[in-house]
Order: sequence, then C-alpha cells, then structure tokens
Amino acid sequence: MAEFMSGLKRTHYCGTLRQEHVGAEVVVCGWVQRQRDLGQLIFVDLRDRTGLLQLAFDNATDRQIFEKAAGVRAEYVLAVRGIVRERSAKNPELPTGDVEIEVQELRVLAKAETPPFEIVEHSNVKEELRLKYRYLDLRRPDMQDKIIQRHKIVKIARDYFDDNGFLEIETPILIKSTPEGARDYLVPSRVFPGNFFALPQSPQQYKQLLMLSGFDRYMQVARCFRDEDLRADRQPEFTQIDLEMSFIEPEDVMAIGEGFIRDVYKRLQNIDIPTPFRRITWHEAMERFGSDKPDLRFGLELVNLSDALKDTGFRVFAGALSAGGSVRGINLKGKADELSRKEIDKLTETLRAYGAQGLAWTRLTSNGESSSYEKFLSEQEAAAVRTALGAETGDVLLLVASPKNSVVFASLGALRCELAKRFGLIDDSKPCLLWVTDFPLFEYDEEENRFVAMHHPFTAPREQDLDKLTSDPGSVCAKAYDMVLNGNEIGGGSIRINTPEVQRQMFQALGFTPEQAQQRFGFLIDAFRYGAPPHGGMAFGLDRLVMLMLGCDSIRDVIAFPKVANSSELMSSAPDVVDPKQLAELGLSIVPQAE
Amino acid sequence: MAEFMSGLKRTHYCGTLRQEHVGAEVVVCGWVQRQRDLGQLIFVDLRDRTGLLQLAFDNATDRQIFEKAAGVRAEYVLAVRGIVRERSAKNPELPTGDVEIEVQELRVLAKAETPPFEIVEHSNVKEELRLKYRYLDLRRPDMQDKIIQRHKIVKIARDYFDDNGFLEIETPILIKSTPEGARDYLVPSRVFPGNFFALPQSPQQYKQLLMLSGFDRYMQVARCFRDEDLRADRQPEFTQIDLEMSFIEPEDVMAIGEGFIRDVYKRLQNIDIPTPFRRITWHEAMERFGSDKPDLRFGLELVNLSDALKDTGFRVFAGALSAGGSVRGINLKGKADELSRKEIDKLTETLRAYGAQGLAWTRLTSNGESSSYEKFLSEQEAAAVRTALGAETGDVLLLVASPKNSVVFASLGALRCELAKRFGLIDDSKPCLLWVTDFPLFEYDEEENRFVAMHHPFTAPREQDLDKLTSDPGSVCAKAYDMVLNGNEIGGGSIRINTPEVQRQMFQALGFTPEQAQQRFGFLIDAFRYGAPPHGGMAFGLDRLVMLMLGCDSIRDVIAFPKVANSSELMSSAPDVVDPKQLAELGLSIVPQAE
Repeated sequence: MAEFMSGLKRTHYCGTLRQEHVGAEVVVCGWVQRQRDLGQLIFVDLRDRTGLLQLAFDNATDRQIFEKAAGVRAEYVLAVRGIVRERSAKNPELPTGDVEIEVQELRVLAKAETPPFEIVEHSNVKEELRLKYRYLDLRRPDMQDKIIQRHKIVKIARDYFDDNGFLEIETPILIKSTPEGARDYLVPSRVFPGNFFALPQSPQQYKQLLMLSGFDRYMQVARCFRDEDLRADRQPEFTQIDLEMSFIEPEDVMAIGEGFIRDVYKRLQNIDIPTPFRRITWHEAMERFGSDKPDLRFGLELVNLSDALKDTGFRVFAGALSAGGSVRGINLKGKADELSRKEIDKLTETLRAYGAQGLAWTRLTSNGESSSYEKFLSEQEAAAVRTALGAETGDVLLLVASPKNSVVFASLGALRCELAKRFGLIDDSKPCLLWVTDFPLFEYDEEENRFVAMHHPFTAPREQDLDKLTSDPGSVCAKAYDMVLNGNEIGGGSIRINTPEVQRQMFQALGFTPEQAQQRFGFLIDAFRYGAPPHGGMAFGLDRLVMLMLGCDSIRDVIAFPKVANSSELMSSAPDVVDPKQLAELGLSIVPQAE
Repeated sequence: MAEFMSGLKRTHYCGTLRQEHVGAEVVVCGWVQRQRDLGQLIFVDLRDRTGLLQLAFDNATDRQIFEKAAGVRAEYVLAVRGIVRERSAKNPELPTGDVEIEVQELRVLAKAETPPFEIVEHSNVKEELRLKYRYLDLRRPDMQDKIIQRHKIVKIARDYFDDNGFLEIETPILIKSTPEGARDYLVPSRVFPGNFFALPQSPQQYKQLLMLSGFDRYMQVARCFRDEDLRADRQPEFTQIDLEMSFIEPEDVMAIGEGFIRDVYKRLQNIDIPTPFRRITWHEAMERFGSDKPDLRFGLELVNLSDALKDTGFRVFAGALSAGGSVRGINLKGKADELSRKEIDKLTETLRAYGAQGLAWTRLTSNGESSSYEKFLSEQEAAAVRTALGAETGDVLLLVASPKNSVVFASLGALRCELAKRFGLIDDSKPCLLWVTDFPLFEYDEEENRFVAMHHPFTAPREQDLDKLTSDPGSVCAKAYDMVLNGNEIGGGSIRINTPEVQRQMFQALGFTPEQAQQRFGFLIDAFRYGAPPHGGMAFGLDRLVMLMLGCDSIRDVIAFPKVANSSELMSSAPDVVDPKQLAELGLSIVPQAE
C-alpha cells in the first residue's frame, strides 16, 4: 500500500541543495532516477523538475528504511526526510554533486511499472512512442526545460505588453464561420440544429472591433485553429501573441514588436538584439533572396540575368523571357570541386517541387570547365552571364529560367538556403532579425481569374497608392510588414482600412459587389460606419518563435500535448467516435463513406 | 475624404492632461463626445480610454480649422495638435477640467453615423440592443473600466502564480470526448469522417498528467466549454484560473488560493483580506446555513426542530421525520410587522422551485400572534419549537419540513438569503471569504440508483475514510474544498487519487467494472501505473470572480463579447448556417427537424 504525505512538508527542491545546506534537515520529494544497491550501501538518485539529488542509505540507516530502499525501483515516487551531508565522493557533473541526504524517513508515495522507455535526456526513442506516452516523455529534463522556457517567454511577453499599456482581452472561441481563407473547424449547435459555430483562425475581426471600441492597445495570447492538411511545422490548434493598436502608423507597430523581441532575447538568453531591425521591401527581398522571409545570415544573392540574355536564341531561356518571366542565377563561390554533377542533378529534382523545369549550371573547377547551357549561348552571352555573376575559377553558377517569376524566385530562394546549410555558410553566432515591408496588397489568383487579398481584405494600401486601388491593383503596396528570424517568418501584420470609403474601393478591386461584401463581412462593415480610428497590429506565431529561440527541430517539442500530421492526438486517441445520442441531440447524422 | 495620421504622433492620452502641462504642444486623438457650437466659439469634448479633454476653437483659430470643427459630430474620430492652456471656466467634475487645447491642427480621421444609442456612462439601453452593437456599448466608460479591471485581475493572477513557482502550460482545446458530466461541445473531424473532437469542460485530465510528468506546479487561465442550457450567470464558454500542485496536502492548495485572493484584493482595491480564511465543513455549512456556499455576512441560521417534534402527531411534520427527513426553521427577528401573511405566501411560492411543499410560519406581531401550524401541535411541542428558535415578540418563525433533508436545506438556504437581502441584513462593508471543506465524496443518484462522484471520480477520500470506500460510501468525506465569496462559490478543488489501488476501489464504489473504467478513462488510468505524485489543485471561476469584485449584476458585463441565454452571440449572429460543401467535407448531414 502506498503511503501519504500527511505530516511531511517539502522544504527544498532536489536540484537546489548545495554545500551550504550541509547539516540541515530537509524534506525532498520526487521520482527515482536510479537505484544502486551495493549491499551495505544503497544510493538513490531522486529527480524533480530542478534536477537530481543523491539519497544515501548505509550502516547508520534504520534497518526498516534500508529494506524499503532496497525495494525501490526506477520512477517510484518518494518523499524523504533526512540530513544534508557532504559526499565522500563528489560528482562535479551534478550541481548537487557535493552533497547527499542521510535518510531518516522514507515514504513510497507511489510505485511504478517499468516505463516503455527510459526517462533520460535527449532520448532517441521514436516520436510516435514518445507521443503515445507523452506524460512520460515530458518527464525528460530536456522536454521539461522546453516547457519551462516557453512559460518564461510568454510571461515576458505579457509583462512587456502590460508595461506598454496593452490590455489582454479575451475574444470568443465559438464564433461565426467566415467563408474566406483557410478551412474553419465547425462546432454544431444543439440549441439551433443545423447551425454551427466556427473556431477562430485568428481574433482578427474581434481585435479590430476592440479598436473601434476605443481600447487603444489590445493583446492576447490567443489559441487559433485551422483545419488544414498539416505541414511539418503546423498544428490544427496553435497559439499566437496577437496585438492591435490605434492612432498609429506602421513604424509604431514595428517598434512595439521589436521591443518585445529585444526584451525576450535579453531576459531569456541575455542576448542583445540591436533595434531598429533592418528593413527590406518585399520587392528587394524577392529580387535579392528569392524569398519574402529572407535569411540574411549568408550571401548567395540572386542575380537577374534577363538583360544579359535578352536576345538569346536558346529556347529555354528565350521562352521564359518572352512569356514575361526571367532567368536568374546564383554563384556558389569556390565550391566547384565539392558540388558534383550528380549532386546538381539531385538538387534539380528537389527544385521541381517549386515548379522549376530544370537547373542550368556551370562548374568552373580547377581541372576544367563544364556547363549545361553555355553551348547553347553565344560567346558574348555566356561571358555576360559569367560577368553578371562575378564568376571565377572554383565557382559553380546555378541558373533557373521560368515564364513565371514566382517560380524563379521560389526555386532559387530554396536552393540558396539549401546550399548555405550544406556548405556551412550560415553565421549562426547571433539571431538575424529583420522586417519585410511594402508587400503587394493583391496577388492575382489564376484559378479564380481575379485579384485576391495577399493578407486579408481589411489591409490598408499605402496612401500614395490609393488612387491606383481600382485602376491598377497589381501595383498597389500594402501597409503590411512581416518579422523574419533567421529566414523564418515569426510574425506579421498590417495597418487596417478604417473608413467605409476605402473599404468600398477595396471590395470593388476584389470584385465583390456591395451585396456580396455585406453578406461576407456584414457586422464588421456595419461597425465601421460609427467611427473607426486608424489602427493596425500584428501577431507572432508563438509556437514557432519558441521553437526557434530554443533551437528545436520540431514545433511539437515546444507544445505540451501536440497533435501529429493527420491532426490526431496519439496519447488520448482523439478524435474518436461519440455516442449516437450526442449526434441525435445535435440533429446530425454521419454520411456513410465510400471505401 | 477622411484624413490620415501620417506625420502626427500622439503625445498624450486625453485624460492625462493637467495644469502642469499648460504651454506644452501636444497631439491627442479620440472620439467626439459632444460638440458645442456657440457661434464665435466651438468646444469639442474628445474621449479616449483615459477620459475626456476639451478642445477649444475661437477667434484665434485658423478659419479653415474653425470651419472643420463646426462640421464635427458625435463619435467622429479626430487627431488634434495644439497647445495646452488654462481654461477660463474650469470644470471641477473633470480630471482634465483645468485645461483645454488651443487647436492648431485638426484632422478628421473618420466620420460617424449617429449611433443607435448614446455613448454615455451607466446607459439604461436594453441589453439586447447593447449586445447587438457591442462595439459601441464597449465605448461606454463604465464598460471600458470593467474590461480594464478584468485585465488587471488576470495580470495580478499570473504574476502571483509565477512568483510562486507555477508554470503556465497550455493544454489542448481539441480533445477526446469524455462521457461523464456535462454535455460536451463536439468538433467534427474532416480527416477522420464520423469522428469528433470535444472542447474541454476543464483541463482536469491534462493538468493531472502534467503533475504525473513532474511539472510540480501548473496554472493556466483556461477557456472551458459546456453545452448546457444557460442560467443567468453561465456562458457556453467561460474562463477559469486553473491550478494544480504536487507533493501537497489540502492546506497547501488552500494557502496558495488564499494568497491569490489576498493579493488581488490588495493590489486592485487596496482591501486587506485576513488569512487564513475561516474554514467550515460541508456538514456544518448545510446544518447552519442550508448551503454549501454559505453567506456568513448575516445570521438567520437554521435550527433543527426534528428533536422537538419527534413525537408530533401533525401529519406534515411527522411524515417528513418518519421518512428520514427533518423539520428545520429560521427566526426572522423583529420583522413580524414588516412581513405580512401575503408576503409569506409569495415566499412559499418561490420555495417550490427547491421542492418544498410549503412554508410553515408563526408571526409574533406586537398586535398578536398567528401561526399556520401551532394549532396542529401539542402546547409542549409548540413551546419547544419557539424555545429552539429563541422566539420573542416581533419575530417571524419560518419552518420547512420534508422527507428529504436536501429539500429542507435548499429551501431554507434560499429563504435565508432572500430575507437578508429584503431586510438589509447583509454587512457588505467588506468581502466575506471562507472555505467549505470535507465534502461528501459521493452523492446518491436516485435515477441511476447508485452512488456517483460529487466532484469527479479522481477526487481523493480522506485517509481516515479509506476503509469505508466500498463498505459505506455514503459516509466517506473527500479531500475537497470550495472557496466562497459573499455566498458565491468562486473556486473549488480537491486532492486527487494518485495510486491505482485507491482508484480501483473508487471505481468499484461507483459501480464500474474494471473494463468500464478502462473504456471511460483509459489513458489516464494507464498513466497512473507509472508513478503519480500526490497532487491536487483548484480552479477559480474567473468571470464570476471579476463580476463579484467589480460589483456587477451580470457576468455578461465582464466579458467583452458574451453570449446570451440561448447560447447565441447577437452581434455576429453566431451560430449560423454554413456552406453545404463544408458539411460534405466533414461527412455529415443535417437531420430535418420535426416542427
């Protein structure tokens, strides 16, 4: 029979005892990390969230306690009263390695079966098993540390925003479904059969209404939901640090966002992040780095070769150019001997995912030159490409041509990152933070054959572009900004439209009739008739920010109970079937699925 | 056309300007509270979340600005640059009443239509209209203040628990449906058609798993969901301050909970709450106050008259007693002249809701005595009742008899509160906080004809009651505790069972076979096989706590976007119908409803 805590009160956490405590009577509690029975001597390493502590049982120990200690196994839960004493054999690897507990009272609070994997740091147990027994996986010190660091990051965030006059205001989780954007999770209503709530993809509309209400500065650590097929770093439910401000311009939001990041790095890791961050326009980011979240910790910049090749007869390049696309390249300096043709072929394969038809190359090795495309160019054209790329012996030139600039950018942007990683070109001595600004307001949707909002239809255009809103939507830039950390978007936002006139033009540019607009965004449009302040904000992806700050590979490592790629939770087996009575109450029936 | 903020930066909030700012150039922004056009002189009261500020336009004002000011209407959004000057006619009612702004630049950032109700403090507009235009309702200073106070309470909570070593850990919102307790909201899975997630009624199981993982101290400001028919102070989604601790006994949790309440009263309202709070057992609370959340700010205690009436021939009393019930009463001292027979009849009606068949009474007015029951009693019995109740001239004796003690308690408990409110007997000079302890572990469910868990099946019995768990469940007390504020339960919790042996006995007492238990609570039961520490915790109902601390009448006043009794949100009209395509993706169809 297990014993109880009654009458015992923990005085110290295991990991906190030091030389200075020698002689003190303490009560410690925790799990058995391991038990070593040397016959006349038993040692038990006791673990709690602060670390390990050695318990010692020897000739001086009461026999009954000694016997009990002999029966103790890994993961048993113990409470111990005893005296701190100096160890004879110290362990410099352990913060508590100078001391041990001379045990005077031992209670076995709970026994434990042998766990399916050992509770040790940096386990290489496969993730599926870890997630099924998440409650054991979370006992591992490295996992505990991640969750503790996450708590600290969120606490720093709340302190920072509170210090800056932001109010944390809870917005509803059960809301109205909006047909724009990603897929909503739905929640059937029992009171109104056939009607549904939706779970929010973000608090966007509510936070705008809070600005309209005059709360001036809002923030929320908000749970958000998207029923999408999951990529590696996505979860069906995720958390964002959401904020919104009134009577501001983009620089005000960016300064607040920078201040938060500076604060969290300083307080969590004592790293000084200089502010303001570098700003780079979306246009420049695409041209130079092929990405709207460029990693500036290395070079390998894109070079536009379209001009050098404008008269070429080479079908692949000429076709791309005549269709309005481009030919661009990067120069992998000095790596010709390390990047074989075979490896280039493999890279070519991976670029197909981005729509690239091929990867043209020139290798300038010390043993000679070879090229996949120079033979199709005039001597002058080949030389012009080399010059544009600054080619020297030892370099590899890698070119992508496509009738779609978006394909050229995506391919070379990805290639750039892959090469930098492979050849160790990344300076990871400090975090690299920047803002990407002046995003296009619209992007052309070829399926729908119309412009769609790049962010959402409440994003404000730049004032100088207002007159082009309906006449030349493609050239309009938004008051939008993304924060990028080491090539990852960690946050983004915009100034919102705050007057019905501009909103009307926006809907017109998007091809909505006033009736369609009213139907889709009814109460928000109504609200804006009663005086909305200029406002804007942003949201940080908390899970990703924590993952990057802690240097984790997976977003699942910084979420206590994550879901896997098919959206299920392995520990509890959710989702699951439910009682037919529950469905009957909701007025729903399940449509039999075709095999 | 509306104007923009460009080039203007707010320097001060409206409500912050004072005599000391006279002469300073400032930029302020906000909404027009009102505009007074006196011909040569225009005054505008500008409002932001900090208060009102007067803008002045006069002969010295640029004519174009003066014209613009003349066109300004209520709820227009303005940005103003100007000089702070002393007012000629000061307004002592306003914190900024000594000063005004001599306007040098005026921008109309947004116009406004006339709102459906005026934006003033303590509006008596009906709630339905307020909720439909919640974004305008939230502009009212008293509503803003409530939301700001709520933010402060939550911030104080997080600081307090962080200071005490608690980690805020997010638990999932999309979880597995558990068939116990209240009705779950369900979320259909698209990936697994016919399967559902549920929204959590509380993070109970996850927080217990976190203790099993060794996090030691957990807290979360957690959104919870219950699909119940709503009472006045319930919402389908609500927020609780949820906490759990390891290696503790009830007193440790109670001390932490008391510390939080002491802290929040001190920091928010500068009220000193003495700790420890008074403790009263569930048994005593029922006997003396007829309630498990007794309001101790007044007397009117219940008196058990069963002994005095044990041999009575009066059918109503005798029947109650012989069935195992009781006769109890309260003495409303000195109010006989103020409580007429008619009013007693009305009270009797309201008590029917609690199952009482009637209310027996004796009025000892200065003009004479009358009684509904004394004529049926022996003289000795009538006298014994009077003695037990301490009856004197001027008093009203009110008795309830029922074969069910629960009915007697509920009726007299409610009557007691009603009379105290009606006759102003409540000392509301300071908050009255206490703990109710030693709840019964089980209550008998007459419909199911078995014992059910009063809280939940993981609640630990007192150690001294362990041997009665299966032999005499009705007499077992739980290590459970509720915190009561002015007669309202604001929090509650318990120590949990932490060993498989006790959990097995608990399930046995509840009449579950091991198989049934495994099916219902599978992964949690599994988890407990690997060493669970002694643990327990509690949860505070945040919405109710905020409501009570701020003295609001409705929980809807302390929630930014609340739902109404039928669970709908009036502003956005959620829930709503959705696109049939969405249902098809989920593999669901709507069952046509009978009229």
